[in-house]
Amino acid sequence: MIKPLAVTMGEPAGIGGEIAMKAWRDHRSDLPAFFLIDSPERLSLLASSLKWTVPICPISDPTEVGDVFQDALPVLDHPVTVGTPGVLSKYTGKSVICSIERAVELTRSEQASGVVTNPIHKHALHECGFSFPGHTEFLAELAGIATPPIMMLACDELNVVPLTVHVSLKDAIVQLSEDLIVEKCIITNNALKERAGIEKPRLAISGLNPHAGENGDMGREEIEIITPAINRLKDLGLDVVGPLPPDTMFHKAARDQYDVAMCMYHDQALIPIKTLAFDLGVNVTLGLPFIRTSPDHGTALNIAGTGTASETSLVAAIKMAAQMAQKQQSIS
Amino acid sequence: MIKPLAVTMGEPAGIGGEIAMKAWRDHRSDLPAFFLIDSPERLSLLASSLKWTVPICPISDPTEVGDVFQDALPVLDHPVTVGTPGVLSKYTGKSVICSIERAVELTRSEQASGVVTNPIHKHALHECGFSFPGHTEFLAELAGIATPPIMMLACDELNVVPLTVHVSLKDAIVQLSEDLIVEKCIITNNALKERAGIEKPRLAISGLNPHAGENGDMGREEIEIITPAINRLKDLGLDVVGPLPPDTMFHKAARDQYDVAMCMYHDQALIPIKTLAFDLGVNVTLGLPFIRTSPDHGTALNIAGTGTASETSLVAAIKMAAQMAQKQQSIS
Repeated sequence: MIKPLAVTMGEPAGIGGEIAMKAWRDHRSDLPAFFLIDSPERLSLLASSLKWTVPICPISDPTEVGDVFQDALPVLDHPVTVGTPGVLSKYTGKSVICSIERAVELTRSEQASGVVTNPIHKHALHECGFSFPGHTEFLAELAGIATPPIMMLACDELNVVPLTVHVSLKDAIVQLSEDLIVEKCIITNNALKERAGIEKPRLAISGLNPHAGENGDMGREEIEIITPAINRLKDLGLDVVGPLPPDTMFHKAARDQYDVAMCMYHDQALIPIKTLAFDLGVNVTLGLPFIRTSPDHGTALNIAGTGTASETSLVAAIKMAAQMAQKQQSIS
Repeated sequence: MIKPLAVTMGEPAGIGGEIAMKAWRDHRSDLPAFFLIDSPERLSLLASSLKWTVPICPISDPTEVGDVFQDALPVLDHPVTVGTPGVLSKYTGKSVICSIERAVELTRSEQASGVVTNPIHKHALHECGFSFPGHTEFLAELAGIATPPIMMLACDELNVVPLTVHVSLKDAIVQLSEDLIVEKCIITNNALKERAGIEKPRLAISGLNPHAGENGDMGREEIEIITPAINRLKDLGLDVVGPLPPDTMFHKAARDQYDVAMCMYHDQALIPIKTLAFDLGVNVTLGLPFIRTSPDHGTALNIAGTGTASETSLVAAIKMAAQMAQKQQSIS
């Protein structure tokens, strides 16, 4: 039996509260126990404005979750100014940050088995002095690790890791290096062993160019960067194949041959997973000393408060975190 | 009632003959009438070596196809040296080229309603003095057109046009220009009207960078190249939207909003279509004065003669050509 999962409030002007309530209301019999770190008053008001029946149970400690979870949504009491859905406020940023810190503390002290983060609004937090580009860098700081963690996108059919994320395509090509590939493959390999319980993870390394360069006819990065990195990884004993032609590595029969696709740039990874599982993708952070997942969408300010936002990615993120916690428990 | 379709022999050491025979044997009741331009002797020998029952009917004119198609595979007699599957020969190149020429002539003289090409082996043809990079350029020469035709990949769920094809990713970014986008969108728009009978085609234009550049934060090509091209196309009266974030434009709900996705580079187009429909993609050439489709695979020399090659892409190519011929007939 794993400890409950800690779900952060995320940006309170966004959809975090309502998708968490929907996840509990419509999926609780099928979900591991979790609790939200948020204001019970704020959530009760939100439920009542949406005319939803979602009993909220304020708790002061994660040990209370198990008893109440099937009857009410457990909410670890956390103060936040009540605002208007869709409208950012300068009074809520500190509370958003503190909700993440509490989730991490509870997980590291083994009172919770993992952190599931609702989406934050970076610009709103930057105005409160939050100096990190995003969630992941903040979590790395809280964890006290120097190597940047890795974003893996996961769904039932496919796991992908983009080697670079939010840079232009031109810069992604410039930033590609043998060391970058080797480093990210090692972190991914170790995390899949520890968190996913895969004894010998199979990593598929994509090419950068069409047809993986076709022996240098269409680009030389495969010859000069990717293949040397693969050879180093093989020497280290990792199970890697590649460079694979990017267009033929994501269909069913190809996907069955590997556990994760290591992709050379953002869209090479995100196009196939969002084509296959648009609403069901989960963001998994690898390389942290604790489990962290998040839904693969933003704050959706434009529809916040309407109750129309889909909870499917949050539900998938909660399930994924629980699976990882179970694997970890069975290993240790 | 459309005229029969002309299917070329393709590289005789490859899988063209056997997939054509399989297409006829297993799908003829569901297919429009077609004929192969190939040697009846060669095909009979191949069928017998595979222990397949495929009656071959030599014909000398496409008008004979209709009467025989349900009982035998009609083959327009075309001389070729019989060789060994999987082994390229210098004696067959001229015959391969001539088979394409005959298919085009028969289509342009309205004895056939379209050309479906089996895969050729470019290196083998180059040894016979064939000076074109591939099929498409040769067909453009035969058609006497100056503007290079466009490759569209099509399946039931999605049509994609890559703006550049067989160049490195770095060069694809360099080659991207306002004029290139405008020119290819106009050709695609006109072809979808004429060949697919879509009155006002809806073109979705992708971005180049992650999140379509996010207002220039991750690359400026959207601002400097793609948006100006879109504005020119709108001024010309085309129904275009974009630049769209590449990762969120290929899931079901997004695909329903457009008829074709115009993609900034090879893998941006090919990753989603091959993820969705690996064996079922069809290559459609737009901008030729006649219909031409082909299966989306190569000669597969390594499995030629074994009978294991899948005929599904050729079957899809034959159906697609027939659909286009019917549309064209109903328009004219």
